[in-house]
Amino acid sequence: MNILMTLDSNYIKPLKVMLKSLFLNNQEESFAIYVMHSSLDTQELEDLRQFIDNHGSQLNVIYVDDDCFEDAPTLLHYTKAMYYRLLAFKFLPQELDRILYLDPDILVINSIRELYNTDIEGYLYAASYHDKIALKEVNKVRLNVYDIDAYYNSGVLLMNLPLQRQLIDEKVIYDFVDKNRSKLIMPDQDVINVLYSKQIKSLDEKLYNYDVRFYSYYKIMNGGVCDMDYIFENTVILHFCGKKKPWNKQYSGKFHSLYKQYEKFALNDRMKSALLGTR
Amino acid sequence: MNILMTLDSNYIKPLKVMLKSLFLNNQEESFAIYVMHSSLDTQELEDLRQFIDNHGSQLNVIYVDDDCFEDAPTLLHYTKAMYYRLLAFKFLPQELDRILYLDPDILVINSIRELYNTDIEGYLYAASYHDKIALKEVNKVRLNVYDIDAYYNSGVLLMNLPLQRQLIDEKVIYDFVDKNRSKLIMPDQDVINVLYSKQIKSLDEKLYNYDVRFYSYYKIMNGGVCDMDYIFENTVILHFCGKKKPWNKQYSGKFHSLYKQYEKFALNDRMKSALLGTR
Repeated sequence: MNILMTLDSNYIKPLKVMLKSLFLNNQEESFAIYVMHSSLDTQELEDLRQFIDNHGSQLNVIYVDDDCFEDAPTLLHYTKAMYYRLLAFKFLPQELDRILYLDPDILVINSIRELYNTDIEGYLYAASYHDKIALKEVNKVRLNVYDIDAYYNSGVLLMNLPLQRQLIDEKVIYDFVDKNRSKLIMPDQDVINVLYSKQIKSLDEKLYNYDVRFYSYYKIMNGGVCDMDYIFENTVILHFCGKKKPWNKQYSGKFHSLYKQYEKFALNDRMKSALLGTR
Repeated sequence: MNILMTLDSNYIKPLKVMLKSLFLNNQEESFAIYVMHSSLDTQELEDLRQFIDNHGSQLNVIYVDDDCFEDAPTLLHYTKAMYYRLLAFKFLPQELDRILYLDPDILVINSIRELYNTDIEGYLYAASYHDKIALKEVNKVRLNVYDIDAYYNSGVLLMNLPLQRQLIDEKVIYDFVDKNRSKLIMPDQDVINVLYSKQIKSLDEKLYNYDVRFYSYYKIMNGGVCDMDYIFENTVILHFCGKKKPWNKQYSGKFHSLYKQYEKFALNDRMKSALLGTR
């Protein structure tokens, strides 16, 4: 399975935690992990490669020179890295037919096979939207578009690469960004939602993009079904959305202790052996 | 290291979760696990033995016939199992010099080596008390004793077996229970506190018997130091004290998601491979 991540030095630690959770709960799989970056040094990359190797998967580094986006408009507070996931298809090997993009602020707590194998024929992406009416309406008004059905979260994004190569035109993206500079808050997510909303296959957020801030909301909206038992049985991806991140000191939340445990699993070199069964 | 547990069929599942956490965070160790029981069937014992074998440790079953305690007074709502941990020293091999008793409602999240090797010369036990003044005073009044310094929790109990063989007399225990029938709420814990309080070495509850109901209390009482980072770095034993247990549906708490993760690690047979490093 192909996994895509974009990265700078600040996110190496959360990224390892995310990967650890992916490896730990998908032990039958082997992954080809593509990392797009413009600033990691040799030591950081070597460390990451070792970490990934140790878990039986493979790192593929895609160094992105800023020249690659020389025609792209930039926005205040955003580097050109905002284009990485939008235009990843241009940098990935031609033979790849799909890849799963994952944000670093997530935990994978079950098998991703079903997600990865989702039928996306005719769609550019598969993604989840967070089904809070308020959120959709706010974003409709903000972006001044009235024909989006949902505001998708781009933190978990299954990509149909052959179709993207056919249909996505970087100039259209640049043009959109240029004309909407003042409106864009989460530029890449905004672009996907405004330009490609109709070509996104919708995934169940409870399973594939569970926003950890809303435990009670999910539980109530699903008639009490979506409790902690349900989550560990069914949910594949927990997403630590929002400004407060679980690797920061002041964090607090339902999944705080879980995150800290994975952080420890990921970063504790003293643990050398097996999780389960024969050692 | 020697580990002691007492068990009936209702607690096999939590016990496996506890053991899983012990094994997972003490991978360099091998354990001799002593289980005292009077009601498990062959299949249950075989299953438990397999589970423990798979993790490189060894199960020793101590079947306790009720005849063993024929002189012991019984209390309403309590079986003779209340005497197991008090009199375990009589059932354990003579050559054992120490053993760590653990309740099933705990998670072990760090190495127990330091705890296990605590100097207990001259003490019958090492244990923690939960340092809430109210708790101590309530128990003093209830038990009608005024010379106990603390009310120790007997869920984590390091035992000095040679000294217990010398000093603990079952008749004294039976006599105490018989005379205090109406006052005893947690009989084995009460006995230890009233009869042996002076011979208990006090352990830091933050490290060795962290009551998960009081996250904010620990944090405030320790000047903010005892936060989630501190816990995963330092705390060895999380104790799910109280009536609400994390394996029940209605549970909710700071360590709920963590518990559910260990439960899944323990009970998910599909997970066949390694936690960390080479597979």
